[in-house]
Amino acid sequence: MPPALRFMLAARRSELEGLRGLADTCELVTLISRLVHALQRERGYTNVYLGSQVETYRSQLDLHTEQARALEQDVLQRLQAMDLNAASAADRARLFNRVAYVLHGFDELPGLRRRIRERLLSPSVATAALTRLVGGLMAVVFEAADTAIDPSITRVLVALFNFMQGKELAGQERATGVAGFSAGFFDAGVQERILHLTQSQQRCFQTFGEFADPVAGQRWADLQHSEITAQLLRLREVGMRTSAQHPVDPGLSQLWFELHSQRIDQMHEVETHLAEQLLASCQSSIKLANADLDNHRVLLQRLASLETMGCGDARLFSVQASDLDSPAPDGHGPQMGRSLLDLLQAQTHRLQDANLQLDEARQALNERKLVERAKQLLMNEYALSESEAYTRLRQSAMSRGLRMVDMAQNVLAVAGKG
Amino acid sequence: MPPALRFMLAARRSELEGLRGLADTCELVTLISRLVHALQRERGYTNVYLGSQVETYRSQLDLHTEQARALEQDVLQRLQAMDLNAASAADRARLFNRVAYVLHGFDELPGLRRRIRERLLSPSVATAALTRLVGGLMAVVFEAADTAIDPSITRVLVALFNFMQGKELAGQERATGVAGFSAGFFDAGVQERILHLTQSQQRCFQTFGEFADPVAGQRWADLQHSEITAQLLRLREVGMRTSAQHPVDPGLSQLWFELHSQRIDQMHEVETHLAEQLLASCQSSIKLANADLDNHRVLLQRLASLETMGCGDARLFSVQASDLDSPAPDGHGPQMGRSLLDLLQAQTHRLQDANLQLDEARQALNERKLVERAKQLLMNEYALSESEAYTRLRQSAMSRGLRMVDMAQNVLAVAGKG
Repeated sequence: MPPALRFMLAARRSELEGLRGLADTCELVTLISRLVHALQRERGYTNVYLGSQVETYRSQLDLHTEQARALEQDVLQRLQAMDLNAASAADRARLFNRVAYVLHGFDELPGLRRRIRERLLSPSVATAALTRLVGGLMAVVFEAADTAIDPSITRVLVALFNFMQGKELAGQERATGVAGFSAGFFDAGVQERILHLTQSQQRCFQTFGEFADPVAGQRWADLQHSEITAQLLRLREVGMRTSAQHPVDPGLSQLWFELHSQRIDQMHEVETHLAEQLLASCQSSIKLANADLDNHRVLLQRLASLETMGCGDARLFSVQASDLDSPAPDGHGPQMGRSLLDLLQAQTHRLQDANLQLDEARQALNERKLVERAKQLLMNEYALSESEAYTRLRQSAMSRGLRMVDMAQNVLAVAGKG
Repeated sequence: MPPALRFMLAARRSELEGLRGLADTCELVTLISRLVHALQRERGYTNVYLGSQVETYRSQLDLHTEQARALEQDVLQRLQAMDLNAASAADRARLFNRVAYVLHGFDELPGLRRRIRERLLSPSVATAALTRLVGGLMAVVFEAADTAIDPSITRVLVALFNFMQGKELAGQERATGVAGFSAGFFDAGVQERILHLTQSQQRCFQTFGEFADPVAGQRWADLQHSEITAQLLRLREVGMRTSAQHPVDPGLSQLWFELHSQRIDQMHEVETHLAEQLLASCQSSIKLANADLDNHRVLLQRLASLETMGCGDARLFSVQASDLDSPAPDGHGPQMGRSLLDLLQAQTHRLQDANLQLDEARQALNERKLVERAKQLLMNEYALSESEAYTRLRQSAMSRGLRMVDMAQNVLAVAGKG
């Protein structure tokens, strides 16, 4: 086989191999999005259970735990089925590392759940543990988005990641509001946190909107204009107007929890749609790459048959193939050489274009990277734990009315690393 | 094996696999930098040979052609030895595609060289053909830099790519000046082109300086302050002051050519140093990754021995491993769990940090990407060939006193793609 053609085919095969690995990852991401939703529910009911000091919520909590456990098993099975030595496993160090963290978290879960049922943990400690696991799962989705090699798939992953993050923030808003309403009023800390969570959600859903397909965008718009959202907004306003002097019925906490929970369930339908899009996108990219590889192979066969007709490689890859020279006297050679060069240039442009689109889509993930980087800096400089560093960054941002990403950029700039 | 540990090891193995593939690529890049230098020489003497219309330079040209041919064989052999199905071959579509283009160019060379010796080509057409091949080889180095997964190696590749590009521009300046001096004076076109090439070289060497190791930086600084550079700068000024009314001795073209050629040879020593750095960098990264993988394996053995002592996995990956809970009563479990978690976090931070450094180093390649993108846009919009689009972009930039990258950004902005 002429060396040029060998590398052209290898380029296409490499793309295909990468897409197959990506399809595996996307299946994993789909299962993770379901598990995260179940864990968010379990976390919500854990809070309610630990907060109420009565056994009323125990059976509901058990139900949600069972659902989460079943989905955990799905994720575990998917992970065990992954071929970690496959060709497509190269350059996946970050993804595998995030998965290892999640698996470590899975091992902690049985003990955590036992302690919750024995009421040995405060709601905040239990929430923090489950939030850590959800964060670990989100990090897998993030790495999947940041390392995907196909622009259309990357776009769906960026949309999904941002939607999941927005939903996770909605879950945190639910918990914060439950604490506020249960106390009868939102103190300054609760108000600030609600405001912060609201703004952060807006940013996530805005990025989601930039990368989502029209159907996903429409479903989200419908939910935004639904009665349940309107009720929730009114309730949020009620909460924000409360004070120690003007408290409300603590019973509102249950309404707040129910409304948020229903809405979060409806949000999950958008996620489900995105997950379907993701798998469809993988399939169509793989189909395209396969068809292209077949085209390349057909060309190869034509070349081989020309060879038996006495037109050697040297002719086929001759100078006539470039615009350097006048057409050659024979019929086949230059035409074939030209079509090869065209194919090669088309492939180059397609890959270049894909790379640019990838860069654009990944830009949307930069915000999170900056926050991670500032967090790490704070951990090193002030010997803080990861969660301490995050809290300090968040609180500094909140108290200055800044977005997390702006605060992160400030931190990095001052350290000469911005 | 506990699943978390399995993925941790897979992450490390994946990095190692990627590094081995990268080391292969870097060896290829080293051979390419030698070949490019030989082709630049061959191109220079091709111009002299075709320009002179006498056979004086034929033997020198043949000598340079022989050298280039030998290095071509080295590159070809290296390419043939590459395992295109290896695990590390995934996600290398862009690199392979660029290689295919180069191999196509190699096939054109014998015919091109024959036509040159038969004086069937003008100097500009011959130069354009060789420049295209050099450009193809540079593109391989570019993709190698843009897809490398190790920040220290990426830095060396970015330095090398920019230095090679600067040297290539110096070669173009040599050819432009030869044409100018041979005519007795630099017309407006030559002057503009010399100015443009000078500025472009400065930008390349500046980026090189940001990423080069101190030794490479020092060697370049020494060359910048050498007598040969001073002479060349004076000669450039002389040329720039010429006009139809104030011509100079056309014999200066030979001095200009000789000075430039000597200086380009000295530049190649910086490239040779960078190539050595590149291989050293690959070796040390692989050594580090291997040592780390061994550490992970040692940990695994300790885990296995603990297991036989009756401390199961569940304990090792228990909640005590996090800061969620109080220390456990037994001695081994939590300590081991903690050390695993530490290892996992250290790995996460290292990978995050590497990723950020990679992003930074790759930013330096963005300028070229923007130009490529604008070029592609012009090709599509005005049905231009690649070189026509490039020329139009370059001339628009020159006539407006803009840098290529700024002109490219303007083009993209107007098209709503900036």
